[in-house]
Formats: sequence, structure tokens, C-alpha cells
Amino acid sequence: MQDALIALTKFWTDRGCMIVQPFNTEVGAGTNNPATILRVLGPEPWHVAYVEPSVRPDDARYGENPNRLQTFTQFQVILKPDPGNPQEVYLESLKALGVDLDAHDIRFVEDNWASPALGAWGLGWEVWLDGLEITQFTYFQQAGGTNLDPISVEITYGIERILMALQKVDHFKDIAYAPGISYGEVFGQSEYEMSRYYLDDADVDINRSLYDGYAKEAQRCIDERLPVPAHVLVLKCSHTFNVLDSRGAISTTERARAFAQMRRLARQVSDLWSERREEIGHPLGLVQPHAAAELPNQFASIESPATLLFEIGTEELPPGEVPRTTNAVLETLTAKLADTRLAHGEIKTYGTPRRIVALVEQVSAGEPDAEQTVRGPRASAAFDAEGKPTRAVEGFARGQGVAVDQLTRITQQDVEYVAAVRTDTGRGAVEVLSKVLGDVVSELRAEKNMRWNDPKLSFTRPIRWLTALLGSTPVPVAVSALGSHTTTRVRRTAEAPVIPVAEADGYLDLLKSHDIVADASERQATIVESARTLAATVDGTIDFVGEAALLDEITNLVEQPNAILGSFEARYLDLPADILTTVMRKHQRYLPVRNASGDLLSHFVAVADGPCDHDVVRAGNEAVLRARYEDAAFFWRADLQVTPIELKAGLAKLAFEERLGSMAARAERIANNARALGSLVSLSADETATLHRAGELAKFDLGSQMVVELTSLAGVMAREYAVRAGETTEVAQALFDMELPRTTGGKLPSSTPGALLALADRLDLLVGLFAVGAQPTGSSDPFALRRAALGVVSILRANPGLAVISLERGLSVAAESVRAQGVEVPEQALADALVFSVGRYEQQLLDTGNDHKSVTAVLPLAASPAAADETLAELGRRAGDPGFAELVAALQRVRRIVPADTTPVYDPGVLTEPEELALSESVAKVKDSLGTSATLAEFADAATPLVGPVNAFFEAVLVMAEDPALRTARLGLLATIRDLAAPVLDWDAL
Amino acid sequence: MQDALIALTKFWTDRGCMIVQPFNTEVGAGTNNPATILRVLGPEPWHVAYVEPSVRPDDARYGENPNRLQTFTQFQVILKPDPGNPQEVYLESLKALGVDLDAHDIRFVEDNWASPALGAWGLGWEVWLDGLEITQFTYFQQAGGTNLDPISVEITYGIERILMALQKVDHFKDIAYAPGISYGEVFGQSEYEMSRYYLDDADVDINRSLYDGYAKEAQRCIDERLPVPAHVLVLKCSHTFNVLDSRGAISTTERARAFAQMRRLARQVSDLWSERREEIGHPLGLVQPHAAAELPNQFASIESPATLLFEIGTEELPPGEVPRTTNAVLETLTAKLADTRLAHGEIKTYGTPRRIVALVEQVSAGEPDAEQTVRGPRASAAFDAEGKPTRAVEGFARGQGVAVDQLTRITQQDVEYVAAVRTDTGRGAVEVLSKVLGDVVSELRAEKNMRWNDPKLSFTRPIRWLTALLGSTPVPVAVSALGSHTTTRVRRTAEAPVIPVAEADGYLDLLKSHDIVADASERQATIVESARTLAATVDGTIDFVGEAALLDEITNLVEQPNAILGSFEARYLDLPADILTTVMRKHQRYLPVRNASGDLLSHFVAVADGPCDHDVVRAGNEAVLRARYEDAAFFWRADLQVTPIELKAGLAKLAFEERLGSMAARAERIANNARALGSLVSLSADETATLHRAGELAKFDLGSQMVVELTSLAGVMAREYAVRAGETTEVAQALFDMELPRTTGGKLPSSTPGALLALADRLDLLVGLFAVGAQPTGSSDPFALRRAALGVVSILRANPGLAVISLERGLSVAAESVRAQGVEVPEQALADALVFSVGRYEQQLLDTGNDHKSVTAVLPLAASPAAADETLAELGRRAGDPGFAELVAALQRVRRIVPADTTPVYDPGVLTEPEELALSESVAKVKDSLGTSATLAEFADAATPLVGPVNAFFEAVLVMAEDPALRTARLGLLATIRDLAAPVLDWDAL
Repeated sequence: MQDALIALTKFWTDRGCMIVQPFNTEVGAGTNNPATILRVLGPEPWHVAYVEPSVRPDDARYGENPNRLQTFTQFQVILKPDPGNPQEVYLESLKALGVDLDAHDIRFVEDNWASPALGAWGLGWEVWLDGLEITQFTYFQQAGGTNLDPISVEITYGIERILMALQKVDHFKDIAYAPGISYGEVFGQSEYEMSRYYLDDADVDINRSLYDGYAKEAQRCIDERLPVPAHVLVLKCSHTFNVLDSRGAISTTERARAFAQMRRLARQVSDLWSERREEIGHPLGLVQPHAAAELPNQFASIESPATLLFEIGTEELPPGEVPRTTNAVLETLTAKLADTRLAHGEIKTYGTPRRIVALVEQVSAGEPDAEQTVRGPRASAAFDAEGKPTRAVEGFARGQGVAVDQLTRITQQDVEYVAAVRTDTGRGAVEVLSKVLGDVVSELRAEKNMRWNDPKLSFTRPIRWLTALLGSTPVPVAVSALGSHTTTRVRRTAEAPVIPVAEADGYLDLLKSHDIVADASERQATIVESARTLAATVDGTIDFVGEAALLDEITNLVEQPNAILGSFEARYLDLPADILTTVMRKHQRYLPVRNASGDLLSHFVAVADGPCDHDVVRAGNEAVLRARYEDAAFFWRADLQVTPIELKAGLAKLAFEERLGSMAARAERIANNARALGSLVSLSADETATLHRAGELAKFDLGSQMVVELTSLAGVMAREYAVRAGETTEVAQALFDMELPRTTGGKLPSSTPGALLALADRLDLLVGLFAVGAQPTGSSDPFALRRAALGVVSILRANPGLAVISLERGLSVAAESVRAQGVEVPEQALADALVFSVGRYEQQLLDTGNDHKSVTAVLPLAASPAAADETLAELGRRAGDPGFAELVAALQRVRRIVPADTTPVYDPGVLTEPEELALSESVAKVKDSLGTSATLAEFADAATPLVGPVNAFFEAVLVMAEDPALRTARLGLLATIRDLAAPVLDWDAL
Repeated sequence: MQDALIALTKFWTDRGCMIVQPFNTEVGAGTNNPATILRVLGPEPWHVAYVEPSVRPDDARYGENPNRLQTFTQFQVILKPDPGNPQEVYLESLKALGVDLDAHDIRFVEDNWASPALGAWGLGWEVWLDGLEITQFTYFQQAGGTNLDPISVEITYGIERILMALQKVDHFKDIAYAPGISYGEVFGQSEYEMSRYYLDDADVDINRSLYDGYAKEAQRCIDERLPVPAHVLVLKCSHTFNVLDSRGAISTTERARAFAQMRRLARQVSDLWSERREEIGHPLGLVQPHAAAELPNQFASIESPATLLFEIGTEELPPGEVPRTTNAVLETLTAKLADTRLAHGEIKTYGTPRRIVALVEQVSAGEPDAEQTVRGPRASAAFDAEGKPTRAVEGFARGQGVAVDQLTRITQQDVEYVAAVRTDTGRGAVEVLSKVLGDVVSELRAEKNMRWNDPKLSFTRPIRWLTALLGSTPVPVAVSALGSHTTTRVRRTAEAPVIPVAEADGYLDLLKSHDIVADASERQATIVESARTLAATVDGTIDFVGEAALLDEITNLVEQPNAILGSFEARYLDLPADILTTVMRKHQRYLPVRNASGDLLSHFVAVADGPCDHDVVRAGNEAVLRARYEDAAFFWRADLQVTPIELKAGLAKLAFEERLGSMAARAERIANNARALGSLVSLSADETATLHRAGELAKFDLGSQMVVELTSLAGVMAREYAVRAGETTEVAQALFDMELPRTTGGKLPSSTPGALLALADRLDLLVGLFAVGAQPTGSSDPFALRRAALGVVSILRANPGLAVISLERGLSVAAESVRAQGVEVPEQALADALVFSVGRYEQQLLDTGNDHKSVTAVLPLAASPAAADETLAELGRRAGDPGFAELVAALQRVRRIVPADTTPVYDPGVLTEPEELALSESVAKVKDSLGTSATLAEFADAATPLVGPVNAFFEAVLVMAEDPALRTARLGLLATIRDLAAPVLDWDAL
């Protein structure tokens, strides 16, 4: 292991990195060393590498867990500015560590990093070595709450993991640390004893007072403008906090307060550091920005139509961004070419993690010339009485570069103007494309964008090269510092990673010959085909439909899929299948292999990227999976030692939201909500019992080790553990249902108690967070309230039996529970939550293709989504019905004429005209035939007879009679009609 | 700099060291990292190397001082067990750092290390590179209060220093840290800010509470048997203490308490660690001890007398041990050879730092045979009446291996015995020498002894080789694991550092041909000659007499002296000469160069060891001296900004002894003592004023930066600063005198006020420390009370004018001052202090050649050393005087006959005999002629007339008359004589 550290040290110093020492106070990660967290700030260059023993008291396991240590070793590299090729350099460093890049499957898998406590975030990847995460690779975007400029590349190697893989050992203690000495022999005792201290023996009161002391000192140092000691003290705060936390001594409130305090301190330190560096004149100098790429003065010309190849080369895009960007490029390119006069054939785009390729057929050699008429002054103002040109027209002519006598006249909207007609000479194709392609690149945007070493570009990951050829003619493109070339980059480990591209035609084949399949559909087909074949070798199948999302992800994680069948020990099949598949999908992106009945087999298909040594990669992936399953099996066994009620006791220590208390408090509110909602609907005695018991157990599995590790198994594990603890299957199912739907459009609760619990859960979330002012803003929705609101709506829509639970009612039930815990819920917050929820419903309706008018029309009903749904459906059914259309028109006419404040009462005796008397009679009949709440169908059926009398009324009667009493009566009559119709829908919207 | 760290890391890993990381909490030195302080304990092997940024808040200087940093970089190596050649390996490592070993002067200069706080100590060296200390090299002997076995070698490189030297820069900030980046650019801000925190801004109350918290936690961890976290917490204690200390917040009492606490904790941690390692079965295995060397079964023989060469090769001996060991070998060898029958010529021994060479001329080829007569039973018991041998004689003969009829007879003290005469065959010279030389080595002992990798040997430094040749015949010697060879080791940097030795004759020349001068007197002569010549080139001289001690030291710091003349900037000559010479002598072992009038010139002579590049070595030494003088100049200027009284205020923070308060308290006692003593003697008004003022200022210079740095300048700086602050020259001189004598036999105070202050100082030391039970025990005399007592005696002896100040009186004056500060002084302590002081005086008298009888005789007077001195002198003068001898005999006769309890009164009227009446008359006359206290001279002159009457009395009178009254009167008469003589001296002793 020490050889590895020395090799990395040497590698990075050879590449210009300075070496500093690990920090001499406990840090949780190399990032916290001032050599990173302070040095990434400001304009000074900084290239540094160092070892950092990182202390995480919470990970203490007495040295027993094979992968988890309270102190583990990071090797940290900061490259500021980004050198332009950090991934390539990083891969070289793996070689220096003895990794055979040709044999292994090395991947950059999207993984972003954020530390709200440090006001820091970055985008990047975890680097996989045969499925094992060995490095965190991040483009640091913000620290201490300020944007970084220049950007730093942060590379963090997990040394123990890398060495366990390279040395093929299963426990960190077995790593060969130095010749003849194992890691366990050197650090085993310390690992055990420090675990004892962190988990069992640290004194809570003393550490609390240490924490306070350090926090005070940190603030004093900030006040004295000493960022360096202040940072040290913040680190001591943080470590002490972690010690207290691992002792289980941090309440929810304390945690929130401490985090806020440390965050505040860290930001002040960052600001102060930046100020101080500026004051002392940036001793390390300033990073010089890259110069902008330049375009030639003259563009080449081509003779005949040719194919355009344009490739945007990137570092590994997040899989979701591959198709999105592929489409975006198609759209932008299409639109931008349409804005030119350049003729062209079909445009196709393709995407892989590292490139977006656009191919445009038959791009003509240039734009045709075009005439352009430019309007000048009015003809009347162009010449004076003597017919001489005025100064206005002279100026116009001069501006257009023509003589006055070359001007013509045009007439627009009956006014005559002088005009200049100019010939706009068509540009050559290369020139046109140069501009268009440049714009395509500079307008690229993704969901989350970052900066790297380019002064102006911003995209989801760095754009590193542009390839542009029209036929065989280079197309110069310049975007910020980036210029186009007639080369492309193939696999980084290829002998020649950069290859020339002679011409656009046949480009996809050229790529293919270098193990790159640009077409995602082709990659996916290959994956399906080869995975199916591999699964068949063990009599297995793969549920490609069920795994569609995973399949898409895998497709866009590779440039050339290389499926490999791996296996794991059959004994793990004793674990619940959800655990196994969650680990496979979520952590490893493996396709689970099943038998004909859909049961899991002890196999999986991993998809490597491009050529590699199958045995090596298989073995690596199997080892990773084994370790993960071993962990899961450990958690499973450990959790089963504890009853659900005991697990639930642990929720008191789980933070939820500062003002809303712990997760235990939230679980209590959910249980209360569920009981209250249950009392509103008709439940069988069994259902009531199930609801109450499940409410008691609500969220208990959040206290289990399994769910702490694999949060997505919340609910799943509740069901598993509940059944095994002797709860009824109904209770278990209700606990499972409670977490549904997990995603928008996801599976909904299958039982009424489950649905009620799921509502109770989401309503609490909405009311609670709106009550404390934590509603979503703009792009920020940390508590996923949008999803919660959609969940409520979806459940209500799917359960007409719960129709009595309107959104208002549900929210007010939840408000009671919140208030019962002493948290104020302002009425306005409740109203806002309702509006927010209705808004989600509206959006959902629109997203599923309902027309805007109908949606708006039913919105007043949205508080009861089931009713709104029914109305919407009825609107659909009556869409082409002329009778209904007449009814709508009549009602709208009524509504138009009646002032809003008109009361729906009138004295029929005052009415005089027969048409109004007839209408009054009709109205009375309709009124009688309708109950208090009519559906749209009922109302329409009942109210259609009103159409004739209404129309007759308007034909014959002047509503606004001079006699006030008469006028009042007539308006009252119309208002009665209006109000009869009002609860049904928003007629004006139709 | 980072290259240096990488080079060292690689060097030591290549030699089997493990690399660990710097510790992740602040440590003051690499030693505190558990990888040293815990791992040196117990029997497990441990080879480790690591970088350690070491934090010393007290050294914070805002980054301004060129050599001093609050955080500096150590590179630490632990070799356990000692590999046998650690120095050689270390030198290789310097090569790896780019040090040209042939050009530079690299020396191992005695420097031992002890950390009472850690219960740890070791013996070793500071390694000098051209006079610059670059490494601490220690054989760790004890840690946590327990003896280490095996011994660890600890090598601590001071990285910044080494690099400043190698890069030839004058300020740490200018070190090139990484390509293009200086140390200051990287660490400057941190250095400044952490200095601010440590010196100015750290909150005292908070840090105090942190300290307490950590101490409590450490104890708890110990109670939980967790040495690792306990050690971490002790380190945090220690760092927090250091922070408080650098903030000036630690009172003397607090310091003592904290040190005791940390020491106690550290020891418990060490013990616990050892126990725990044993409990877990010593995971790293056990160090295998070296097997003992073996002797052959048969020894070679030589034909004719030959020269014996015996060389004991060591690592660099402390200079003082070179002559001591050279003499010891001479003595032991002489004695041990004398115990054999091996004839030999002259024995000569020679010593250098690395070898003791013994040459014995004309060693004969073997011992002659010898006849040995063994006495048997008495002849009378040997044969029975019939002349047959008894069983007794038969047994004797059998035991001696002879037949009964071979027995002879001998007569001893008139008794006849049977006897056996046996021939004891002489052994060959090689066999005899093998045993003798082995014993010489195993009996080697020094003042401080250590262990290394030998299981049984113990000496001041490791013994690494033995060379033994008789003529050209190898003499096998085996001492513990060490065997003799016929090779020797020359300079470590020589091409062949081990060379064969063919024969004993000419050995010194052989060494000389390898640049080694074994004869110290020859080395010294060379130094004197070459230094004189060099000094002359700048018209200078060297005071070899004044520098005799330094010259001896230099002589024994090298194997071949290589004097080099260096210079420094003349402006430093403005500093007081004592500062310059102290730095030269004490720190650098340079000979100061003076002009004809004895004033310093800006030159010095450094003596390198063996061949080197003079220019390189000169430049290095000059740079070191410049840095030291620059520091001194800085202190000088800084101290002059402050008045003596202000400096004195700083004494309150200087610890003296826990129970006796700070140095300020001690200074106050000294001033009190001085005033009290002054009032006992007759002083002029000026003298009194001087005494009082100097008392007020007593010890003020201990608060100056200069004396903090160069403690030996205490007193010297007082005089310098006092004069410059406008004090009178008398006051300045008194302050200077106060510190005299500095050594046994050193210069004494030249003024009466100075003498009184010096007495006041030393009496306080004696009384105070005896009062609190801190008197010297065995070899331990941490407060140098022996020297203090001798100082008191010397001053009193040299100042007869102060005769009124007896030791009793002086001590009781000092006791008053101590008591005035609330410290109890038991009478017994005072009595013990007196006995102790008298004992020192007695020893001094004996050491200066006075005969034992006379010294014992004057001891009763020793409380007034001047009087005792005078008596002793008079005894000397009367040594051959027969009259005096008769007086002594007469007085002794009187004293013998008079019982001790006889009262010196008698009724002359009872006396009857003329002789007794005559004696009575004579006694009365003598009594009248003597005052109350007579000197010996006065008494002898007066009492001589008693001799005749006394002798006549004894001739004629029976003292023990039967008549009780008469007997009583006679005894009373004699007792009167006895008591007349008693105060003069102890007559019985003569």
C-alpha cells in the first residue's frame, strides 16, 4: 500500500503537483484540508497532491467490517486550473498504480458532489474499476458559497478500495501494507480502539463542551480576520460533532443548529480567505485564461453538395443527458440551418457518453444569392416639393450603399415608402456552417451545467473537442477557446487515442472500427441481444421491459457495449429479491437474470465499455457484488435481531427538519393523520385495525441498517421485516403501500389502509414544510414536495372511494397533527399548499394530453381530484355534442351579462315578459331535479332544457330594464342559472 | 523541498521501512506520533519512516524569524531493533538528499535527549553538516518510564534547516518548496496567522477548558483500557497546554501541575499499550536477539614476543569520554595483564571519537609454567600413629591429583602442613589475551551508559567492532555478540571504509594513512599549530590557554583535525564579546581569533574532521554563525528596548520549582537574603546602596530574550544591560558577580556586594530545596546543589571579611526569606543543608590535597570556612614542629582519660599533689591569656607551656583516686584543659 502512495506521489509531482502533508487535525475527507477547500478559492493557480487519512467516526466498526473504517486513506489531487485533459492524466496515474488499462473496464459514472455544510458542490463522476468505485472525480464549481473561477479538478482516490481490488483481498486488514506487514497488523489495534472511543466511550458532555469551545474560538478568529486558524477550529468543531453523532448524542434540533453554525463559519472563513489573499496580492500569481479560438479570414469553398460531419466531443455525459443532448443538437441544428439559405438533406444526430455526432446529408456548396428589400422613409417625406430628395432619403440611400436614383417604392398598409433592393450574396457552405455549428455548441445546455477551463462555455460536462468536416473539407469552428479539428478521439486507452478523420462520409463506420458505436439504438440492440444470449447460457432470461430505464442508462454509459455474464453465490438468493435487484440496478447497473417464472437466478449481466479481458472484468464485478451482498446480508441478519417497534425507537435520532422535529415526530403525525383520514371513510373493522397498527409502525424501517444503507428500500424492507416479525400480511402490505407512489406515475397503493397511510405521509410533508416556510422555490425542492403533491393527487384520483377526502380536508387533517406537536400552521400556508397541490394536478392533467380549456374548466373541482377527473372525462365524452355546446354557449352568455356581485334571488312576481316567465319556470324545474352536488353529466342532462328558454329570453328581453325592480329580478333570475351551473365546472374556460 | 521528502521516503522504504502518515492531531515532534512513542515499547520489530509537521506554538514568530516557525517539518525514522550500522545508513540517506559527503564536514556531536514528560530519554548526537545541526540521532533508552528492549534508533531530520543549507538561502520563506514555488508562498500566510493565534489571539479561558476536557477524556480512555485514543487525547492536552503557554497564560504552579498530569497520563498510556500488545499476542512478532559471538576451541600460538594491537571501535564518543576511556582501558588492561603471567613491555592507549587503541609492546609468546604449592591438612593430622596416611590426607591428595607420597611439607606460622606442589602450565599469549581483552571490553563503563543491539553490553555509545592482533596473529575475542576481526574501520566516507590490518606494528601509521590520528596529543598539537597559522594570516592570535577546555573538546570531536579559518561580518563585533564567544564556543566549538590586545577579530577557526572541501565547509560554517549572530543581534536589540525592571517583571512567568514559586519569588528571596547578610558585615554606604539596588534587579536578565536563548550568559547580560540602562558600574558588576562562581573552581565575585548576592543566591537554593525535600540523591542533583554549596564555601573562604557569616548563619538568614513566603523550613532540613555544605567543603579540602587527618581535625570549624582554612593552614605550618606534636599528644592524653560527661569545674582546694597543683596553676594562666575564641596559632602559643605540667601530672598523679572528691577534682582539672582546647580543632583527629 505504501508503494501505491509513493507511486501516486511520484506520478503527480512529475506532473507539476506540489506535495503537502495530511492535515494535522482530524478531517473527514481530503477536501477539508485547507490545501483543497481554501485553495480552490480565488484566482491563484494551485496544483497539489497529498495523502489524507480521513476520519469518519460514524463508519467505525471495530475493524470488523471488511470495507468500512473509521480512518481510511484518501489520495487527493487538486488541479487548478483544469489542465484540459485531467481524465487522461488520471488514467495514466492508474497505470502508475499497476492497473492494466487494457484488461480492466474503467468507467466514469455520473456522480455529483455537494456539501451544503461547506457551501460547496461540483459535478463529476465516480470512477469504476470493473464496477468498483475507486475514485471521486469532480469539477469543483462552488466553495464557501461562491462560484469558483478558475475551476479546480478534484481527484480523490480511495486507496484501501483500490488496493483491495488490486491485491484481490476481501478484508481491509488483509491488504499488504508494506513488505511482510498487513494493514491489520499496523492499524488493527487503532481501528478497534478508536471505534470503541467513537461508538462507546467518548464522553458526551466533554465533547459537547469541546464543540462549543471550538465554535467560539472559530468565530473569534474570524472576527480577528484569521481564516487559517479559524478553518482549523471549524474542522475541530466538525470532528467533535461527528464524535458526538457517532455516540448517538445529537438530537435533531442540535444537528440542525450545529450544521447551520458550521455552515455559517465555513462561509465566513472562505470569504475571509479570499479577501486576505487579495490583500496580500495573490502570492502565487494569477491563472491566465485561455485565449479565444480564432476563425480564418477566408473560408474554403466546396464544389458540389457534400455530407457534413460535426462531432462535439465531451467528457462522459450523464446517461440521461446523452439522448437529451442528441435531440437538442438535432433541433438546434435544424433550426439554425433553416435560418440560413443553405440547402441540405436529412440531418441525423447520434450520441454516446463522449460524443454527439451530427451528420447532414447533401449540404449544398453555398447559399443562393437573395434579394432583400429594405423599407426607407415614407415616399411623401422622401422628396421635397421640387422633387428633390430630402436629407432623410439621402441618408437612407447612403446607409444602404445605393444611389438615391436606385431606390424603388413599396406600399405597405396603404402607405408608400421608398425602398432599397439589395442583393444578398449567398455565403459559401463552410462559412455558413462555421457560424451555425459554433452557435450550436455555445447554446448547448443541460439540466445541471458546469464550467471547466473554458472562459465562456458551460455544459453538463466539459466539451473537449470539435470535429467538423464538409465532405473532406475542414469546417473551422471557434467557440470560446475551443476550435474544430479534423481529428477525433477514440478510446483513451487506444494506441492512438486521437485519429484523423479524412471525410464525413463513412464516419460512423470509422468510429465502429475503433470500437465506438455512435448510434444508441444500435448499442441498445447489441446489449439486448448479447445479454439475452448470455442469460440463455444459464437458462435465464432478462426482463428488458421491466428494466427499460436501466437498459437506457446502460446504453448511455458505454460507447461500445460489452456484455459479460457474472455470478454470485446462490446463498444470497435467500435475501429478499428487492434487495438483490436494488443493489444490482442502483449501485452496479447490472441486469438481473431470472428463470422462466421470473425468479432471480444467481447471475447478472454487466455491460463493460469496449474491449477488455472478460475474466478480469467478470472477477472484479463479481467481487464488488459479493462485497455489497455480504454487507446486505449482514444488515439483514442484524435487522432481524430487532423488532419493528425497537427499530422505530431509532427514528428519534433521525433528523427530519429542524422545526418539525425528528423522523419519530413525523411518524407520529403520519399515524395521527392516517387515523383521522380513516375515520372519514368507511372501513371494515379489519381495515381499521390494519390502518391503526400500520400507523403505529409507520416508517419503522428507516431505523433499520438496510434502509440506512439502501434508502430506496424504505417500505420494501418494512414489508419484509413486518411479516417476519409476525405482523399480518395486511399490515405489512400497508407499510409497503405507504411509500407508494415512489415516482411520478409509479405504482400506487393496492390497499385502502395503504392508500390512507400514503396520503397521511404526503399530506404531512406538504403541510409541515409549508407551515415552516420550506415550500419549493424555483428549482429547489429538497423535500420533493412536488412529488408528494402529485402522489396525493394520484392516490385520490385512483381511489374514488376516498372522494370524501378533498385536498382541503386532507391538508386540514394534516395541519391538526402538526399543530398538535406545537408547530404553528398559518392558514395562508394551508391555502398555499392547496394552491400548490392543485397546480401539480393541473400540470399532471396537461402533461397527460388533456386540452388546456378542459383542464382549466375543471380546476375549481381539483380539490377533489376524483370529481375533477370525472368531470374532465365527461367533458371529453361531450366534446362533439352540439347540444352541450349550446348549453355552454347559453351559460356563458348568462355569465357574461350578470355582474359578479349579483345575488341569485329574484321575485318571480316582478317578471313581466313571457320569455322570462318561461325561463323562470324552466330554472325552477332544473333546480328541483338536481341534488346538492351534481356531476357534469347529471347537470348537463338536467340543464339542457334551459338552452331554448335562455336563448328566447335574450332574444326578447332587455335585461337592463329601466325599472330597477324589474332589472333586479331579471338579473336575479340569470344569477340563479349561473349559480346552478357554477359548482359543475368553470364554464367560462370552455 | 518536496523532492527531498520524496527522496527520503524512497530511501528508507528501500531499506525496509514502512511509511506512515503524519499524525492527524497536532504534535510537537515526530517522536509524539504513536508510530514512535508507542511503537518503541515492547518486543515487536518496527521500522518506520514518516514526515511530521511539528507544531510548537512557542516558536511562532509571525514568519519573520528566518529559522523559527510554529510549524516545521521533521522527517522521522525509527529502526527497531538497531540494525547495527544506523550511522552508515544515515549517511547514505544524506547522499540521497544530494549531500556530497566528500565535500562536507559531517559530524556526530554528543547530544542526549530526555523528555521527563514522556518518561523518555536516549543518548546520541546532533548531526552537524558544516556546523549546522541537521539531524537528531538518538538511541532511545526509555519511554513511558520503562526500559526499552530492544532499543530503537531514532533519526529526526530537520527538513527546513537541511534545505536552507543545501539551497543556500537565509530565510525559510526562500526555500524552493516545489518547482517555481517557494516555502513562503505556500506556507507564509498560515505561518503568520497561526502565529497570531498562538501569540495573540487564542482565548485563554476556552483553551483552559479544552485542556481540562482532554485530560479527563484521556483518563477515562485509560480506565477503559484504550491506549490509542488515550494517547491522542494526551497529545491534544499537550498541544492545548502549549497554546496556553505561548499565550503567556501558564503560571508556575499550573505548569508544574499540568506537567505532572501529562506525565502521569503518558506513563499510563505506555504501560497500557505494552499490556495490550501482549494481550493481542504481539501481532508483529518478536525481535530475535543476536547470538553470542563464539571463541575457537583452540588458540593459535606465536613463536616470539610480538606487539599486541587491540582496538575497540565505537560510534562517536562524547568528547569527555575519549580521554576517560583511553585511561580506563590503559588501567584495566594493565591490571588484568598483571593478573596473568604473561610478560609484556610498555602499554600505550590512544583514543579518538571512534576508537580506543591499545598497543602493548613485546608481549611474550606465552605464560611461563609456574609451581603452585597447595596447603593440605596439618602434618599432625595427616598420618596416624602408625605413619599411615589418614583419610584426610588421602582425600587432599586425590583432590590435587597427586599420590600421597608426592606430597611435601610446609611450615606456616609454626605449624607444619602437608602440601602438594603442582605445575601450572602457562597458557599461550593468544589464549591469555583473548580472555583479558574480552574482560576489558565488557567492563567498559562511562558516566552515562546506554544499550544498543547487543544483548549484554552497555557503554556510553555503541561498540561496533574489535580489532585484535598479536603481531600478525589474530586474537579471537568474544564479548556478548561482538567478535574480533583483523580489519578496522576508517572514515565512513572512504572508498573502502573497512580495511584489513595485517599486523600490529605500524598500526598508528596505517591509521594515519587513512586520515586518522589516534594520538590525541598529536591531534591537539596539529590543531594548535594550524589554528595559530590560520589566525596569523589575519594578524590574529588564539588564546589557547583560555580556550583549553574547548581545545580538549575539539581534539576529541575529530579523528583528524582540519582547521579552517572562517569570518563573520565585522558589524557583529558591536555585540558584547561574551555573546560572540559563547555562541562560538558553546554552540559551534569554534576558536575565537583575537588581536594582540585580546580583542575579538571577526574571524574564527573551525576544526573539521578529516578531508573536505574547505570552501564548502567554510561557507557552511559561516552561514551557521551568521544565522546565530543574527538571532543574537535581534535579541540584543529587542532586550535593549526594555528596562531591567520591565525584564524582571517577566520572571513571574518563569518556573523555578513548584513549591518554591516562580523565579520572581526566588529573586525576591535573594534580595532579602542579600540585605540581611549585608547588615551582618560592615559595608560602606556606597556598598550598601549597590547591594540593595542590585538586589532589586537580581536575576532580571533571566527575563531577557538573550538569556532565554543562551542561559550561560546569565549575569553577563545583566551587567551589559544594567550599564546600558544607566545603572552604576558597581551595580552592574554586582549583578555579574552574583552568578559567580559558574563552575567548581571558577572565578569568584570581585566585589563585596557581588559576593553577598552570590551567597544570597546559593543559600536560597540550598535552603529552599532542602526545605521542600528536593535535596540531591545519589547521582541526581538537578538543581546543582553540590555546586551551590561549594560556591558558598568558596566565596566565604575567599572573603575573610565575611567571616561573621557562618554557614549556619547564612542558612538561617535564607530560611527566614523562604519562610516569609509561606514555605515551611523544618529545622532538620536546615541541619541537613549544613551537613551537606560541610561535606562539600570537606571534599573540596581533600580534593585539593590536604591530608585526611588535618581535614578531619578542622571540620568542627567548617561552618566558618575562613576560620577552618586558617586553622588548616596553621596545622600545615606547625606540621614538623615537635613542640606542637607534644602539645597534641598531651591534649590527646587528657581527652582519652576524661569521660565525655565530665564537667570542666573543680575545687583547686581539694587537690593535693604538687604536680596537680602546678598544672592547675598553668591552666589558669593559659585560660586567662586566651580570649573567647582563639585561633590555632594563638592557642598553640598559649597552651604549649601546659605540656610539661600535663606530662608531670600524669607521671605522678593517679587520676582515679579512691577519694571521690579528689577524683572529681582531678577529672575537673583535666576537663578544663580539654574544653580550653576543644573549640580550636578536633585534636583526636590529628
